[in-house]
Amino acid sequence: MTNNNWNRHHILSLADFEPAEYNMVLQTAASFREVLSRRTKKVPTLQGHVVANLFFEPSTRTRSSFELAAKRLSADTLNFSPGISSLSKGETILDTAKTYLAMGADMMVIRHREAGVPQMIASEMDRLGVRLSVLNAGDGQHEHPSQGLLDLFTICSLFDFDNPHIELLRDKKIAIVGDILHSRVARSNIWSLTATGAQVHLAGPSTLLPRLFTDYVGDQQQVTGTGSPIPQQQFSIAPPPSSITHRKLFVHWDIEPAIQDADFIMTLRLQKERMAANLLPSLREYHQRYGITRDRLQLCKPDVKILHPGPVNRGVEISSDLMDDPKLSLIAQQVTSGIAVRMALLYLIGSGRY
Amino acid sequence: MTNNNWNRHHILSLADFEPAEYNMVLQTAASFREVLSRRTKKVPTLQGHVVANLFFEPSTRTRSSFELAAKRLSADTLNFSPGISSLSKGETILDTAKTYLAMGADMMVIRHREAGVPQMIASEMDRLGVRLSVLNAGDGQHEHPSQGLLDLFTICSLFDFDNPHIELLRDKKIAIVGDILHSRVARSNIWSLTATGAQVHLAGPSTLLPRLFTDYVGDQQQVTGTGSPIPQQQFSIAPPPSSITHRKLFVHWDIEPAIQDADFIMTLRLQKERMAANLLPSLREYHQRYGITRDRLQLCKPDVKILHPGPVNRGVEISSDLMDDPKLSLIAQQVTSGIAVRMALLYLIGSGRY
Amino acid sequence: MTNNNWNRHHILSLADFEPAEYNMVLQTAASFREVLSRRTKKVPTLQGHVVANLFFEPSTRTRSSFELAAKRLSADTLNFSPGISSLSKGETILDTAKTYLAMGADMMVIRHREAGVPQMIASEMDRLGVRLSVLNAGDGQHEHPSQGLLDLFTICSLFDFDNPHIELLRDKKIAIVGDILHSRVARSNIWSLTATGAQVHLAGPSTLLPRLFTDYVGDQQQVTGTGSPIPQQQFSIAPPPSSITHRKLFVHWDIEPAIQDADFIMTLRLQKERMAANLLPSLREYHQRYGITRDRLQLCKPDVKILHPGPVNRGVEISSDLMDDPKLSLIAQQVTSGIAVRMALLYLIGSGRY
Repeated sequence: MTNNNWNRHHILSLADFEPAEYNMVLQTAASFREVLSRRTKKVPTLQGHVVANLFFEPSTRTRSSFELAAKRLSADTLNFSPGISSLSKGETILDTAKTYLAMGADMMVIRHREAGVPQMIASEMDRLGVRLSVLNAGDGQHEHPSQGLLDLFTICSLFDFDNPHIELLRDKKIAIVGDILHSRVARSNIWSLTATGAQVHLAGPSTLLPRLFTDYVGDQQQVTGTGSPIPQQQFSIAPPPSSITHRKLFVHWDIEPAIQDADFIMTLRLQKERMAANLLPSLREYHQRYGITRDRLQLCKPDVKILHPGPVNRGVEISSDLMDDPKLSLIAQQVTSGIAVRMALLYLIGSGRY
Repeated sequence: MTNNNWNRHHILSLADFEPAEYNMVLQTAASFREVLSRRTKKVPTLQGHVVANLFFEPSTRTRSSFELAAKRLSADTLNFSPGISSLSKGETILDTAKTYLAMGADMMVIRHREAGVPQMIASEMDRLGVRLSVLNAGDGQHEHPSQGLLDLFTICSLFDFDNPHIELLRDKKIAIVGDILHSRVARSNIWSLTATGAQVHLAGPSTLLPRLFTDYVGDQQQVTGTGSPIPQQQFSIAPPPSSITHRKLFVHWDIEPAIQDADFIMTLRLQKERMAANLLPSLREYHQRYGITRDRLQLCKPDVKILHPGPVNRGVEISSDLMDDPKLSLIAQQVTSGIAVRMALLYLIGSGRY
Repeated sequence: MTNNNWNRHHILSLADFEPAEYNMVLQTAASFREVLSRRTKKVPTLQGHVVANLFFEPSTRTRSSFELAAKRLSADTLNFSPGISSLSKGETILDTAKTYLAMGADMMVIRHREAGVPQMIASEMDRLGVRLSVLNAGDGQHEHPSQGLLDLFTICSLFDFDNPHIELLRDKKIAIVGDILHSRVARSNIWSLTATGAQVHLAGPSTLLPRLFTDYVGDQQQVTGTGSPIPQQQFSIAPPPSSITHRKLFVHWDIEPAIQDADFIMTLRLQKERMAANLLPSLREYHQRYGITRDRLQLCKPDVKILHPGPVNRGVEISSDLMDDPKLSLIAQQVTSGIAVRMALLYLIGSGRY
């Protein structure tokens, strides 16, 4: 395993990820997956390193995943607990981050309910001229890059377990269904999946689709029918990497055209608080219109697979029996991939320093 | 230390524990106690293993004990925190457990306020065909097997420190006093202590004795006077192990006959919320009728010892000075035993996999 | 590194610290700082030892610092979480401490909102004849000795990085500004800094100065003007170490005489709840009268440095730009010093046992 060609110091977003970077993550993760299959699942790679998990927004699942990844690499971990923090005493987020820097943290894994916080901390670290690396573990409705990468790793591994790479997904059809608007998972996956050459089809209630898309697609009828590719310049805020000249992205207000002949369906978690905001009528109606059911799967490729970032509302995004069907569901593999991919990310950004 | 003869994959209940299993736990724990007395208190036995502590019901004491036991065996630990969990987002308990399975947990230590949750998770793991082991760390009012085993270890060690085994307790008299009805500690101890051939005498207010017992014992006067053995078939729900043909269990509504000539008194924590439910009149009256005091100890064997699972309400279950008398109280030894016994349990269920 | 001459078993207060003890802490911390600069930042010194962090009062910053210090020494750590503890079930503090003792804790790092709790636990451990060491991590308004020592280490290191010792501060002028009355940080720093031979000048609103001082200083005008030394016997409750015959301590109700020609200004965190208690009019007025601003720094020595124990209320105790000026602020160094100093303390009290 070598990271001679890895030049990214922070992982904040997938918007500008190059194909070569995706492949380096996938291959490094595959190496660590091999380590995890051994009897002694630890490597001394990051011994003496400190990974500070700053989860300003609580999360058990993602924090545990990063924590275990760090321990597998023999790093020490520090957990920042929001409830009992200095923040309630009025300290700024940047000052909290600088405190962990001063304690000797080498990497920070940051989750915050506001978009841009990891970027803000990373910029400040760079301004200070320190080597600390920041890993975005979910910022508001912006991005969740490690989730995008572990989903990519999960899918690519189905086609070549030992040598996963993004070219394996060229021309596959992948549907992302649900609350696209509020989903950082969707946003990161749109970047990673469209970078592979796959066709990515978004479907959800119009109130839960990003304005950027609905503005562009314009006429509802046309979109509902077949979907329409979004040209690069409409979609991207950051300049896209030069190596990706076209992203095949389609938007639908109904689920059927999105999942027709799909190879993969990625369902998104529905936040129940969206109902309070009148963005959708009821969980039952949502399930009727957008839920993944055995009937709807008839539309897909015969060997279609289902992904969900978790935690799942059973019977809402997906019917309960499908979720437990190992021939259909990749949900457990996604969680398992999370450890290997996060080990890869900590390794890539963390071990360039000597 | 060898566990060639250990065949139990989960530890959920002591109801069907065989004498040979009790002895294997006791002897393994004695080996680990010897390790703990060395300068370097760690063994590499479970290096690379992951122990997930899923404490759906909060607990500092038991979680710390399991966590330290796991670290002494060089395992990695993951702590699931209920307050900040996916459960508040609607995830089912089984899905939470499967998430930790997918992350690579080898063992789960589970506490939940509802009886049967560890069993449910264990069954699901077996159904899935995975090797994950479940350890019940207290489920509702059902069982707390590691507590039952550490109490057994504490008592047996008094008679033979280097070679504790259950036969040492034959014909000893052990009283369990307090809120038997709601106590998982009592339930597990009833199984373990009656399996040794000891006489176990339960005493408590009639409102805090299990219905099963009071139904059986029938006439109050008779029971109050001397106690009455409970035949096997009345007491057991699960079929008892064939090797235990008779359990000597007696029930009393007054404390005196229970502790008369007792070798050990095990007092149970009184949950103050029982008063709100009108199950007992007041803490003071409880102490007057069932509290362990120096006067009452006159009834017992001269070298009687007192146990309590903690945390203690001083002056309620036991008068404060007795608790601090090292000649009488085994409370500190119970906590110390907890580390060695939990190391033994994690070792026995965890190391059969290679 | 040798601690042959270290005889203190607990670290509860700096009131009776001897100059030789300060110097041993400073030199040990300097050794550990050197370790922290290496690639592998860990030493096996406390392998197998258990450090229990009992933070009855929540704290992320100090707990993380002690936790990382313990991990750098290869100790295992147990964290006691107040919210989910047995305390809410009625257990006494001493019983909680004894539970962690019985589990095998070798050292306890204790924070509590009430003064004297660490002392009480230490006394009980000594009464029991056990070797467990107690480290006060902040008790009410009493003391925070590790903060006092890390501030001392930070300042002394400026004058001799490789060989910090207290004699380097002789005749320096150090101002401590703010809510002296409620500050355990101030109290510990008063002991450590006056032990060096430095002049220590306290300044703050009269409502936030300790009664002991204001009683003594008597006439307000005189104090405001120049400050007045506090004789030893007025200030000290515990008998002072014989080796320190005179502490140069001055009290001011205005900030100007305190910081005039100062080498160091230590600002204290203002607890916003003091306003509710009518102890000060407003944050803005506080800043106007006692805040550290670039204008006020004109009064000090040209190379004056600023300390703050954190977390900072930016724009209250100190203007925001000063805090971020690396030529002026020692705040980050204080946090970094915390790891090395706490490693030193755990090492000195923990490794005498073999």
